[in-house]
Amino acid sequence: MPGAIQSLSRAAAILRLLAGGERRLGLSEVAAGLGLAKGTAHGILRTLQQEGFVEQDPESGKYQLGAELLRLGQSYLDVHELRARALVWADDLARAAGETVYLGVLHQRGVLVVHHVFRPDDSRQVLEVGSMQPLHATALGKVLLAYDPVARGELGDGPWEAFTARTVTEPAALDAQCALVRERGWADAVEETWEGVASVAALIRDRRRNPVGAVCASGAVETVCGPDGAVRPSLVASVRTAARAISRDLGAHRF
Amino acid sequence: MPGAIQSLSRAAAILRLLAGGERRLGLSEVAAGLGLAKGTAHGILRTLQQEGFVEQDPESGKYQLGAELLRLGQSYLDVHELRARALVWADDLARAAGETVYLGVLHQRGVLVVHHVFRPDDSRQVLEVGSMQPLHATALGKVLLAYDPVARGELGDGPWEAFTARTVTEPAALDAQCALVRERGWADAVEETWEGVASVAALIRDRRRNPVGAVCASGAVETVCGPDGAVRPSLVASVRTAARAISRDLGAHRF
Repeated sequence: MPGAIQSLSRAAAILRLLAGGERRLGLSEVAAGLGLAKGTAHGILRTLQQEGFVEQDPESGKYQLGAELLRLGQSYLDVHELRARALVWADDLARAAGETVYLGVLHQRGVLVVHHVFRPDDSRQVLEVGSMQPLHATALGKVLLAYDPVARGELGDGPWEAFTARTVTEPAALDAQCALVRERGWADAVEETWEGVASVAALIRDRRRNPVGAVCASGAVETVCGPDGAVRPSLVASVRTAARAISRDLGAHRF
Repeated sequence: MPGAIQSLSRAAAILRLLAGGERRLGLSEVAAGLGLAKGTAHGILRTLQQEGFVEQDPESGKYQLGAELLRLGQSYLDVHELRARALVWADDLARAAGETVYLGVLHQRGVLVVHHVFRPDDSRQVLEVGSMQPLHATALGKVLLAYDPVARGELGDGPWEAFTARTVTEPAALDAQCALVRERGWADAVEETWEGVASVAALIRDRRRNPVGAVCASGAVETVCGPDGAVRPSLVASVRTAARAISRDLGAHRF
């Protein structure tokens, strides 16, 4: 990248390496993974360790991500305007819909979940804030693809990974779906990400009417969809109402 | 710091600056905040932006923390062994105690919350994973101070900030409390952090019997404490049982 500070870009690459795959790596593995000399990798790792971005297991000597990243990630959420404005609406949507609610923003080549409201029952659920969803196979992702040219650009030309038999993997089919999303004003993903799970999402705009994220209700295909296999219109209405309310709260005008 | 890579240390300082106080800062403010030349600060900010660690508001030109930190923070949690082992025990404790449960680890000069189980009622609660608690004024913190020499060293000599009239701010009083914590095997903080809130915490050890964190039940002083103003013994027992179970799960022997 032009003008980028090399040691910083390398440090970011090390953190990404530790965030994926094995997640606990020795010095040699880090160096080999990035094509760096061991001494270079060690200097960066040592500084990252001093700053709390990386921790080293005292027994194995292997490196893993550090606690400072969690603290900074929380600070990112604290300052996130979309998330702050959406908290109450997302709660209301989860209660009205009786389903899980996610709020997502475009990040790199996927959807980053910045808020997650548990399905309002007493079942055990795992918080997914900070996790990524694929753009081409989720309702959140298809909304972003339909309205945000950057998202469509990030995704590239496919074919993309099939998570189920219903995942759309070809560009022509996905672009046709995105056209439909723009026409209807909402996206769905019925068993395209996980077997048995269906989702509906709608776009959130800021005061300049730019796409800034999407809100989604997600649940068992049996409750999200009607007997005809299509998403229940009442759920679509609830999701679109929430998206409009959040956009209004962000300063977007109605028309 | 000896051997640290300067541009990396500066980048970390910029991220810490953006995580505290104002949280949206212009280039001049960042440069002035760290005593850097504007050109130097700009080069670092631009690289941080390219890597997703920093975002720039298109209207104001101000910088804030970026989404990549949230994603990496989640990856930190995913690989966190203590948290993974503690999930079920923390749920059980929250249910048995009817109170909020936190799991904390020492980070810098505070307690980093790595897990948070909501109080099992239907009230609206805000997730505090990734937030920091003060060492000297919380039950989690006092457990770490009592058992982890590193924590006591980090805290320094005081006097420390008083959050309520009951906060312990003097080293002699705090060290006496820590001695009591070691004698009893648990810590409490009754209205020392927040008016009306009381907490009980106990230590978690790993398989080498080193202190690795603490678990805590926290709630209204009226439910956590008995009529005598002391923490209810049944709650102390529940917290200590959970701490022992988590330690056992981490491989710690019983004695």
